[in-house]
Amino acid sequence: MAKILITGANGFIGSRLAATMPVGSTVRLNGGDELVERLVLVDHVVTNSVAGPDGAEWFEGDLGALVAAQPDLFSSADAVFHLASATSGECEAELDLGINANLLSGVALGRCLASAAHRPLLVFSSTLAIYGSTPEAPLPTVVDDSTYPTPQNSYGSQKLMLEVFFADLSRRGLITARSLRLMTVTVRPGQPNGAASSFLSAMIREPLQGENANVPVNPDLKVVLNSPDGAVAGLRHAGAASDDVWGGPRGVNLPGISVTVGEMAAALAVVGGADVAAHLSWERDETIERIVASWPAEVASERAAGIGFADDKPFIDAVCDFAATINGG
Amino acid sequence: MAKILITGANGFIGSRLAATMPVGSTVRLNGGDELVERLVLVDHVVTNSVAGPDGAEWFEGDLGALVAAQPDLFSSADAVFHLASATSGECEAELDLGINANLLSGVALGRCLASAAHRPLLVFSSTLAIYGSTPEAPLPTVVDDSTYPTPQNSYGSQKLMLEVFFADLSRRGLITARSLRLMTVTVRPGQPNGAASSFLSAMIREPLQGENANVPVNPDLKVVLNSPDGAVAGLRHAGAASDDVWGGPRGVNLPGISVTVGEMAAALAVVGGADVAAHLSWERDETIERIVASWPAEVASERAAGIGFADDKPFIDAVCDFAATINGG
Repeated sequence: MAKILITGANGFIGSRLAATMPVGSTVRLNGGDELVERLVLVDHVVTNSVAGPDGAEWFEGDLGALVAAQPDLFSSADAVFHLASATSGECEAELDLGINANLLSGVALGRCLASAAHRPLLVFSSTLAIYGSTPEAPLPTVVDDSTYPTPQNSYGSQKLMLEVFFADLSRRGLITARSLRLMTVTVRPGQPNGAASSFLSAMIREPLQGENANVPVNPDLKVVLNSPDGAVAGLRHAGAASDDVWGGPRGVNLPGISVTVGEMAAALAVVGGADVAAHLSWERDETIERIVASWPAEVASERAAGIGFADDKPFIDAVCDFAATINGG
Repeated sequence: MAKILITGANGFIGSRLAATMPVGSTVRLNGGDELVERLVLVDHVVTNSVAGPDGAEWFEGDLGALVAAQPDLFSSADAVFHLASATSGECEAELDLGINANLLSGVALGRCLASAAHRPLLVFSSTLAIYGSTPEAPLPTVVDDSTYPTPQNSYGSQKLMLEVFFADLSRRGLITARSLRLMTVTVRPGQPNGAASSFLSAMIREPLQGENANVPVNPDLKVVLNSPDGAVAGLRHAGAASDDVWGGPRGVNLPGISVTVGEMAAALAVVGGADVAAHLSWERDETIERIVASWPAEVASERAAGIGFADDKPFIDAVCDFAATINGG
């Protein structure tokens, strides 16, 4: 019997993750199978509190404030999936927002879990953005488990700080930390946002819905992605792995899909046809190109292989998945 | 004209650093020479407020509380040397103390400096303890600039988090960050403390004062140290280096003295004679040995060489320095 709590549960990944673990289902946690007794869903905005799987309980509010006001809600959980986060674009635009929403709320959550009499499992959604290339410290062609993280945005910095914090609480035996670094998740539904990576979803999403989209980078630019299904499966697997299999509390890079932007456009043409692909324009934006080019394009993770993470699906399958949601809607 | 502020100014290194920059002296900061107009010394305990160099102004109190109560005191500084810290032993014994005194106070200080209209220089005293060896992730024989930091104590974790935080503020152009990682500073005056490294000073300090001291590790164990003079000179040099010379905001390992514990004992015998060395006993303590052996024993830093940090003195000179303070006192 387990009480599971998800932060950011109203979000794109959070809601999909929640759907996989309704009350009464069996979820593998730290190497053992547990019956889900309570499923607590937390978000700063809850758009539809009757959404979510059967038996879910919703709590709406700022994460740091909720932890302060209702610590028992969090510290009584057996497993917490911490996905809540201000986005990379928001954190870059507003320093204080990122510090409060990501860093300080995460520290408050970690302290609260560390105060529990049992040892809660914490699955933390970290990010590829902990890595970044600079002229004086260029990233290697392939980022691996030993690559020194040098985040080039506040979002990645805050996530990295939390990885270090949770690893320390885990080392002390207070929690069991599982920091999993997701790649850029594509295809995302919804509207374009201010993130430099926004076009990676828009270039598939908009044409499939009959709208134009611009690709602001050279077609040869290589990126590394996760499909939405791959991200959810990865988070589930991070929670499922036993201490022995996971090893130390250091973060793990989730295996991703390395693909060029040109290959992404080609996949769109295969799935949607030439008319759909004709909605793409290719007007370069050097600022966006510089940012995206500073991210890793290829990630190898021996640790992930040893922990048994599955490979993500080919990118064309992620395009098909998204196309199916349109046709189904 | 510059206003300089030192946190932890009542401490062993802080007081020595303060002594090198009295009001009216010239200090090199970020590549330019500046006349010290104000010297503000901050510590949570001020044992002797008339100590410190001419013209120094003392402020006593918890750092986080002082930043909250008197933000202008900090944000008006041109250069801040941030040395205040709970010790490794304290942080390991008391999780909340370390989080509050190190992590959250440092975040508050960084936010305060980032709010200044100018761009303050922040020299942050980081530590070798950001590195640590574990059975599954052993450190390389020589730690270099690309070694992935995996702290194995809360103190090192909190310092590493602040390095990442200050680097991000620096990347955003809000402050100029200089994180300098000090090695274990030896010989420290005063009393033994709870730190696992305490014996490294005690095995020199106590015998030179006619007292017994135990060395709890094998004589072959190698450690990397800084002399007190080397640590102060390093902090000064970190503040002096220009942006161009320093490069990106990532932390730099201060060149240290690699020496075996047996060689340290031999240096003691040379300086103090056989009678002094006879005050040493060699009763092993496996717990202490395991901790100390998990730290780097040798550190190479190409970056430090490029920035022009001087090599530290031979260990025997640090022993002579300490012996001179006894004979002079």
